[in-house]
Amino acid sequence: MRLSHNFTKTRRDAPKDETARNAQLLIRAGYVHKMMAGVYAYLPLGKLVLDNIAQIVREEMNAVGGQEVQMTVLQPKELWEKTDRWDDKKVDNWFKTKLANGTEVGVGLSHEEPIVDSLKAFVGSYKDLPITIYQIQSKFRNELRAKSGLLRGREFIMKDMYTFAQTQEEHTKLYEQIAEAYIRIFERLGLGDSTYRTYADGGYFTEKFSDEFQTVSPIGEDTIYVDEKKRIAINKEIYTDENLAKLNFNRADLVEKRGVEVGNIFPLESKYSDALDLYYVDEKGQRQSIIMGCYGIGISRLVGMIAEHFADDNGLVWPASIAPAEVHLVALGTDAEIVAAADDLYHELTAAGHEVIYDDRDVQAGLKFADADLMGMPLRITVSKKTLAEGSVEFKARTEEETRMVKLADVITAL
Amino acid sequence: MRLSHNFTKTRRDAPKDETARNAQLLIRAGYVHKMMAGVYAYLPLGKLVLDNIAQIVREEMNAVGGQEVQMTVLQPKELWEKTDRWDDKKVDNWFKTKLANGTEVGVGLSHEEPIVDSLKAFVGSYKDLPITIYQIQSKFRNELRAKSGLLRGREFIMKDMYTFAQTQEEHTKLYEQIAEAYIRIFERLGLGDSTYRTYADGGYFTEKFSDEFQTVSPIGEDTIYVDEKKRIAINKEIYTDENLAKLNFNRADLVEKRGVEVGNIFPLESKYSDALDLYYVDEKGQRQSIIMGCYGIGISRLVGMIAEHFADDNGLVWPASIAPAEVHLVALGTDAEIVAAADDLYHELTAAGHEVIYDDRDVQAGLKFADADLMGMPLRITVSKKTLAEGSVEFKARTEEETRMVKLADVITAL
Repeated sequence: MRLSHNFTKTRRDAPKDETARNAQLLIRAGYVHKMMAGVYAYLPLGKLVLDNIAQIVREEMNAVGGQEVQMTVLQPKELWEKTDRWDDKKVDNWFKTKLANGTEVGVGLSHEEPIVDSLKAFVGSYKDLPITIYQIQSKFRNELRAKSGLLRGREFIMKDMYTFAQTQEEHTKLYEQIAEAYIRIFERLGLGDSTYRTYADGGYFTEKFSDEFQTVSPIGEDTIYVDEKKRIAINKEIYTDENLAKLNFNRADLVEKRGVEVGNIFPLESKYSDALDLYYVDEKGQRQSIIMGCYGIGISRLVGMIAEHFADDNGLVWPASIAPAEVHLVALGTDAEIVAAADDLYHELTAAGHEVIYDDRDVQAGLKFADADLMGMPLRITVSKKTLAEGSVEFKARTEEETRMVKLADVITAL
Repeated sequence: MRLSHNFTKTRRDAPKDETARNAQLLIRAGYVHKMMAGVYAYLPLGKLVLDNIAQIVREEMNAVGGQEVQMTVLQPKELWEKTDRWDDKKVDNWFKTKLANGTEVGVGLSHEEPIVDSLKAFVGSYKDLPITIYQIQSKFRNELRAKSGLLRGREFIMKDMYTFAQTQEEHTKLYEQIAEAYIRIFERLGLGDSTYRTYADGGYFTEKFSDEFQTVSPIGEDTIYVDEKKRIAINKEIYTDENLAKLNFNRADLVEKRGVEVGNIFPLESKYSDALDLYYVDEKGQRQSIIMGCYGIGISRLVGMIAEHFADDNGLVWPASIAPAEVHLVALGTDAEIVAAADDLYHELTAAGHEVIYDDRDVQAGLKFADADLMGMPLRITVSKKTLAEGSVEFKARTEEETRMVKLADVITAL
């Protein structure tokens, strides 16, 4: 992508009404546009990060047998009345609207009900189970105060997955497989070292705990107690002697930390399937309840989380796995020789399959370097009169101070 | 994809409340789930078709310099008041909702306003233009009566693109480039022969015509007059002697047809940019209006359109470019020899990069063949005792009656 063609520009300052550092940085670097509090549009660079995160999640969900669907935003009231989740007194963050004929409909805040409903045409026998379904889609929650930038939005993008099992045993097997897939996802996103599977409250319809995936961060809204050796944690909300004993935690091994919840998985028992009349008939011809689990990952929250987690004083720092491009190529100066060498390198890199942001603009060197830092690609490659005199270019990793010279002929192999 | 793992099943009958043939077929084949009138969820096979269409559109939009963004569903009222499109008396198909504090917000029915608004941080000079931006996103229109299945929904998926030019001349160049990209898209979707660029009304703020892309079909809601030789058409709504003369049509060459509007492109002049205060400063330092165009393609409408356009009495018939899979592999019988041969072929085909739906279920041959027809992959390959006796499999194209035998060793090259 040539920066001269990219319609966004970097900005020195974020809008005054934006107080979250992740949103400030993403706006300044031209990744997102704020439509209103808690509602952000994705500009080309932001869309690339969003899609890269979604693709990693998709691959890991497919690897555990997930089948991808796309449910709808508009939701019929009747479905949600069956689970007693329509009334604003029960669920207080609905956005609701009306059809032209006056019928109330919901603007999707979650998708347990429609997913279960869609299965009724297909599930009858034990032979039809287990099933694992997921989607990556926008959700809408009418938060009284939207804050923390992309970490807590009114409109946001989630991956939500649902499992349907015959027995608790089958459910647990699926649940643990998916928990492992979550660990792999956070590793691939660069958050592996700082993310902990964290026991939390299971909600009112299960005796079990749920599992959160908490990334340790000073901006975390949650308090967790981490056992660094076992690489697990427990949420403060269930931090009692009884639970510590039940979960084999040793209080002496635990350290208090702030955490951002980047994923969560829940045992749902048969609350939704029973309420919506989804059952199966077992091998003996008996009708049985279906045991469900649900598994969320905040895709757009991760854009904000990762932005804020790795940023330094100069701007964004993307992990290679989700950066909009691997290389930020800077041409210093407008001499024909420099432009020709930079153009050639741009074509060579893209032809070799590397994603490149090419700063071909006619602006000052200082601005180009500042923009490269703010935009946050993993590797900056500079082509200048000085480097060309040595038949070389300059490599600088975004996370390091030092630079090194690499011969033009060796650039591809050096990547 | 093994059909034994796929959670959807085919159905003999569509739901009684579904009258549109495209939705009936897509529901019967397990591609979509009807949430309510005009609101359909995409199940795994439907999601694949949707993504395949979106990818073709994306490639062609990128090829003409389009930069992909993702705007938001929730829309601030203030923006739409500036263009006088908020009032229900002016735009009668809004879905509106309210923030927790009582502020009214819109549920995105289009995105001219937010796209123009997002550009205000980036556009100032003639050097910033032209710009071409697009997105592929859900839109919401509060139709009084949703009908025609996926062809006219309350919630649907569109590609919408917007161009921003300095002059009418620059605008026209972009507009014609995109019109050509549209022709390529409909060719790649298999609709090239039956789709015509069609002159239509330009709306109230331009003297120009707009261009629709109309696919000739008995289910079309529009009446168009086609000049088959020139491969263009004119919409009945502007079918006057004056316009025919202006557009160089000869009444004698025109044939009346029914058409489904699968795309449209509009000159917007500077209606939105002026109203939202987006201008540029030219080389002489003068403030100038920005000339816009907008370019829509109904992605989910195309799922329904293509389903209905090519279907026969036995079910769906997908063009190879967008089919969920290239091959529908049928194993006839459960003998170890047959299962082993079909498994091997499945692995061989997928390893060679072919998408395959593999019917490995333990059901009757008749049901397998009926399902293969209903689901509509381009090529059925059957492995049976009879074919294996000849060291072969049976090929049958979905659109042909004849079958032919192909040696097992030659299957990959025969594809």
